Amino acid sequence: MAEHKVCEDLVKERKQCTFDVQELINLIDGGAQATQERKDVENMVLSTPGLSSKNDVPEEYLSHKERYENAIRKACILSECVKQYAERHNTMDAFRPTNKYRVMLGVVKDVSPFMLHMGMFVPTILSQSDPDQLAEWLPKAMSMQILGTYAQTELGHGTFLRGLETTATYDPSTEEFIIHSPSLTSYKWWPGGLAHTANHCIVVAQLYTKGQCYGVHPFFVQIRDTETHMPLPGIKVGEIGPKMGFQTANNGFLGFDHFRIPRRSMLMKNAQVLKDGTYVKAKNEKATYGTMVFVRVLILTDVSYELSRAATIAVRYSAVRHQSQPKPGEPEPQILDYVTQQHKLFIGVATSHIFRVTGHWLWDAYSQTLKDVGKGNMDQLPELHALACCLKAVCSRDATARIEEFRLSCGGHGYMASSNLPIINGIVSATITYEGEYTVLMLQTARFLVKAWKQATQGNTMTPTVSYLVQFFNNDRVLWENTPSGIISGFKAIAAGKTKAAYDSLHNYEKTGLDYEDAWNSASVQLVNASEAHCRAILCEVSWKEMVRYATNASPNLGKVLLQLAELYLVYWALEKRGDLLMYSTITRDDIARLQARYEELLALIRPNAVGIVDAFDVRDEILNSTLGAYDGRVYERLMEEALKSPLNAEPVNQSFHKYLKPMMMKAKL
Amino acid sequence: MAEHKVCEDLVKERKQCTFDVQELINLIDGGAQATQERKDVENMVLSTPGLSSKNDVPEEYLSHKERYENAIRKACILSECVKQYAERHNTMDAFRPTNKYRVMLGVVKDVSPFMLHMGMFVPTILSQSDPDQLAEWLPKAMSMQILGTYAQTELGHGTFLRGLETTATYDPSTEEFIIHSPSLTSYKWWPGGLAHTANHCIVVAQLYTKGQCYGVHPFFVQIRDTETHMPLPGIKVGEIGPKMGFQTANNGFLGFDHFRIPRRSMLMKNAQVLKDGTYVKAKNEKATYGTMVFVRVLILTDVSYELSRAATIAVRYSAVRHQSQPKPGEPEPQILDYVTQQHKLFIGVATSHIFRVTGHWLWDAYSQTLKDVGKGNMDQLPELHALACCLKAVCSRDATARIEEFRLSCGGHGYMASSNLPIINGIVSATITYEGEYTVLMLQTARFLVKAWKQATQGNTMTPTVSYLVQFFNNDRVLWENTPSGIISGFKAIAAGKTKAAYDSLHNYEKTGLDYEDAWNSASVQLVNASEAHCRAILCEVSWKEMVRYATNASPNLGKVLLQLAELYLVYWALEKRGDLLMYSTITRDDIARLQARYEELLALIRPNAVGIVDAFDVRDEILNSTLGAYDGRVYERLMEEALKSPLNAEPVNQSFHKYLKPMMMKAKL
Repeated sequence: MAEHKVCEDLVKERKQCTFDVQELINLIDGGAQATQERKDVENMVLSTPGLSSKNDVPEEYLSHKERYENAIRKACILSECVKQYAERHNTMDAFRPTNKYRVMLGVVKDVSPFMLHMGMFVPTILSQSDPDQLAEWLPKAMSMQILGTYAQTELGHGTFLRGLETTATYDPSTEEFIIHSPSLTSYKWWPGGLAHTANHCIVVAQLYTKGQCYGVHPFFVQIRDTETHMPLPGIKVGEIGPKMGFQTANNGFLGFDHFRIPRRSMLMKNAQVLKDGTYVKAKNEKATYGTMVFVRVLILTDVSYELSRAATIAVRYSAVRHQSQPKPGEPEPQILDYVTQQHKLFIGVATSHIFRVTGHWLWDAYSQTLKDVGKGNMDQLPELHALACCLKAVCSRDATARIEEFRLSCGGHGYMASSNLPIINGIVSATITYEGEYTVLMLQTARFLVKAWKQATQGNTMTPTVSYLVQFFNNDRVLWENTPSGIISGFKAIAAGKTKAAYDSLHNYEKTGLDYEDAWNSASVQLVNASEAHCRAILCEVSWKEMVRYATNASPNLGKVLLQLAELYLVYWALEKRGDLLMYSTITRDDIARLQARYEELLALIRPNAVGIVDAFDVRDEILNSTLGAYDGRVYERLMEEALKSPLNAEPVNQSFHKYLKPMMMKAKL
Repeated sequence: MAEHKVCEDLVKERKQCTFDVQELINLIDGGAQATQERKDVENMVLSTPGLSSKNDVPEEYLSHKERYENAIRKACILSECVKQYAERHNTMDAFRPTNKYRVMLGVVKDVSPFMLHMGMFVPTILSQSDPDQLAEWLPKAMSMQILGTYAQTELGHGTFLRGLETTATYDPSTEEFIIHSPSLTSYKWWPGGLAHTANHCIVVAQLYTKGQCYGVHPFFVQIRDTETHMPLPGIKVGEIGPKMGFQTANNGFLGFDHFRIPRRSMLMKNAQVLKDGTYVKAKNEKATYGTMVFVRVLILTDVSYELSRAATIAVRYSAVRHQSQPKPGEPEPQILDYVTQQHKLFIGVATSHIFRVTGHWLWDAYSQTLKDVGKGNMDQLPELHALACCLKAVCSRDATARIEEFRLSCGGHGYMASSNLPIINGIVSATITYEGEYTVLMLQTARFLVKAWKQATQGNTMTPTVSYLVQFFNNDRVLWENTPSGIISGFKAIAAGKTKAAYDSLHNYEKTGLDYEDAWNSASVQLVNASEAHCRAILCEVSWKEMVRYATNASPNLGKVLLQLAELYLVYWALEKRGDLLMYSTITRDDIARLQARYEELLALIRPNAVGIVDAFDVRDEILNSTLGAYDGRVYERLMEEALKSPLNAEPVNQSFHKYLKPMMMKAKL
């Protein structure tokens, strides 16, 4: 793996590791064969000519335009290279979370301009086309004869779908829809790849037929000429400009001037418009939840992977970096030996595992629900939707916080682009907003909780993920127990307590004369709190169960490590939420002191395996793309090597000296 | 102010404002005359030819090198323009925090490559040169005949000064110091302007004379030829590469190969080396704390100002943005009317005020201490140092969190570079690390607290800022009172409780056989907690007193608003730390429910004045530099106008289509 000699600190760390790293690698991949397949894809991609960036000037030095052109070049080579693998993605089941294709992060270092082609365009076609449409569009999309994206968000509207302004008005005389952007705010804004890359897209628009509006529906629309790539007449398209991250995603805007498309361009698996303009309703409107839930589920495993990249960087750097001299005359310790540093790092490492196992659990629930829906059973949909909402919201936010903590744990060097932590931060923090804004999603889960609570007050049964609320219905404080299951009970009691508090507050506001929606707004800070508490209870319970299951099936040494990480997660959050535990359980100050002591104990237990644990994320140097985190630990050498790639460093004196600096200093002398 | 018609939502908001915005503007500036002076500087700078960026391609589209060259061009014009003002900065008193020169943010949009010249090079000369040196160096530096920076941090060492490796070895035969970089890790790394801009710098190096090391001292070193700008023989210098922010700061590296400088290049106000190599100790070593404390004090007012920029952007945008439709048939409300949005915004607005008034209070303490030091009285220095450490650490971290919250409150558009929120985020998050890393500073304050606690256990008196600890010495829980002063008492009780817990934990670890420093390390998570609690008690008490004082002197309507903001800050933090209050005060669940209700009430009270309050930060559009936050509220128009400036949008089809995309799609058809 390493071309150079590995730094002695890392050699020492690897020697003291108590478990089999390869076993954990396989566990994360889902088996030894999956590991092998991932490595094959990585080897294939990274040995393809034109895809290595080792000798390139790093992207961050290029102009915005050059970065885009460079990303397109690489994305094209890459798509050629992984085509045979990509073509297997022709059912929704093929989108099951896997690390096999993460190697793309090692090629286009930020985000590929093709991201939404395979991530949204293809899945939407798969899940919302009727059989004829599928037969026509899918092969073209899968083989990349056409390049697509998904255009929903507008300049003036995001998560609130009903507010979208783009119209699709059916004209029975020509059997066409007229797509139109009636205002500046109705321009599509944000879709990745839309700006200069895609020639097709799914457009979400308000459907009008026979003078009536039937709400938003998806349409398959060609926007550029396939030969010349010129925008078609009636189309205004371009890029929206630089962002905090996603610089190479080629996010675009799109406006329509009475643009006509055939009737059959409407995706017709669910609702339809007949030739004469008759609107045929979807059999079940909830079925369209599917794609939204799908993307949200994947976000959990995506942020888990980004956490593993950031963890690898920060933990290896902390093993290599020596600083300060607490004891006179002794050498400076590795910063990984500072307990404050372990406090910053290990919860992030644990969180990567917790989100991965919870993400897989949620994917299984999603798959099952999808199968049920196929059989006409929609019962689980609202529950799955409520679950995916709060999990996506909380995990994206937590992941961002943890990655920022990893970045800060690397001191000034974590601020360098070459550490890759700022880029990872840019990628992950976007997940808080896209595919459903944090607060909006939390309030959707809150609506579900309030409904559930109301059902419980009426003595009705509750669906599985909220049935625990009943236990605490008439309970003031749950009996505290200083064990993992005690902590999980505590979190359930908090969720029940906060749901009750929000529910009561909602009704108290109503009693003051507010109507329901104003009361809802007034109580919304507490409603979000309830949603968060519910989500944390789920995260704690699900991840503990899953980690115990993995630990049971692992060899004893690895099992121990998995349980330490899972327990650390529980104890960390119990301490974070000790105020809530004091309110909703019988926990005492002494219990809290014991939790604190156990937390410090767990940090010490994890410390010797820290490097081994992040090695087991098995992120190749090319995918890690970090001066601080490479396998060999040559941190300072890499920092200098990267700096020397700066075009500014190619000449000792920049032209601006002669043009500006010297005249200024000369004038000052006079 | 506005060239265009102001958006109706903002007109409405401004009409309903209940206080005199101009009065608050003057209060923030420090009086009507200060406001006028600020405006004069702003007008002068922004009307100078070459300094407006209105018609430029925005910086974010340029290559890294082009951005640097553009920044140098503007910084030179700017420095010419503000020279007469700058030349007044020839005593430390002239560095008193003011918003007068913030206009620079409107010129070099990120950070000026000259930042450390006036920010560190000049202050170090001022505070550490002897009179002859001052007479020689200061006029050249003030007039910018020479351009300097401050080179302390190395590739391998940051906050831990004693670990710096660069050596300055005195050679009495030539009466010179030999500056040398003995290793890669000893290279200076990070100083702003060092890369290609400065021709002089202060170098901090380990002083060796007569075979003995006397620790780190500052040296005045020329590094580039003043005529040709070529690095002098024996100097290796260049830039360190792109970062999360500070792209135009021109951060550099610097290595010395036995580079000789005259004996009198050592800054000799404090310690000296005589011609024969005799080392003369500083009269008081603590006196050198000065510059470090100085910079940390300024960070408080700097982040306060950045908070005011971010607050202006997010609040105005929230007044203009309409979203969702809670009530069927009614128009979409301004998002500022959502209580969850107020929850995100108003604490940030309040925090800007709290940090500003605390920063001014700390500056006054610093000035007074400096005067005392001048008279030989060093008594206050350790206390001031401990205070500046934790305040810098906590305020930089809180400000970063608040700014991220402002960014998220703007949804996807807050992720756009043109919102300016990502750039502000980049500038502010760096303050957590530079000039003293967060955890290191917190532990320095913790050492002071532990000493103070020990003194208290021995019945000794304590210095002013920690004397409150005594009150809680034998107290289990403070009596809760639901008032501002009750909250402040609660926070003091928390600080005392956590100091006691950390102190006890430290000694318990010692009892297990650990030596003091290992015990310190084991207890360090709790020690940081104690430091944070102490800092929050100070922030609450000082800011409340200061805000009450301002409110008392203001007209009644403004006074009310100031008190609402100050109380919101207290109540917000009381709710955030309710777990700690439950542990260290007699607060009950009902009290907490009352606090929550009061919090919601305060949000409602502040709501009508929200736009007026941010208008009173009086940040000109050019300094705000945001599509979302301009005074006239033309949010969507500006977003599109900025996007259209993208060089990618200058042509309908990018060359990469013909080069890469088309061949790929053609091949797929085969």
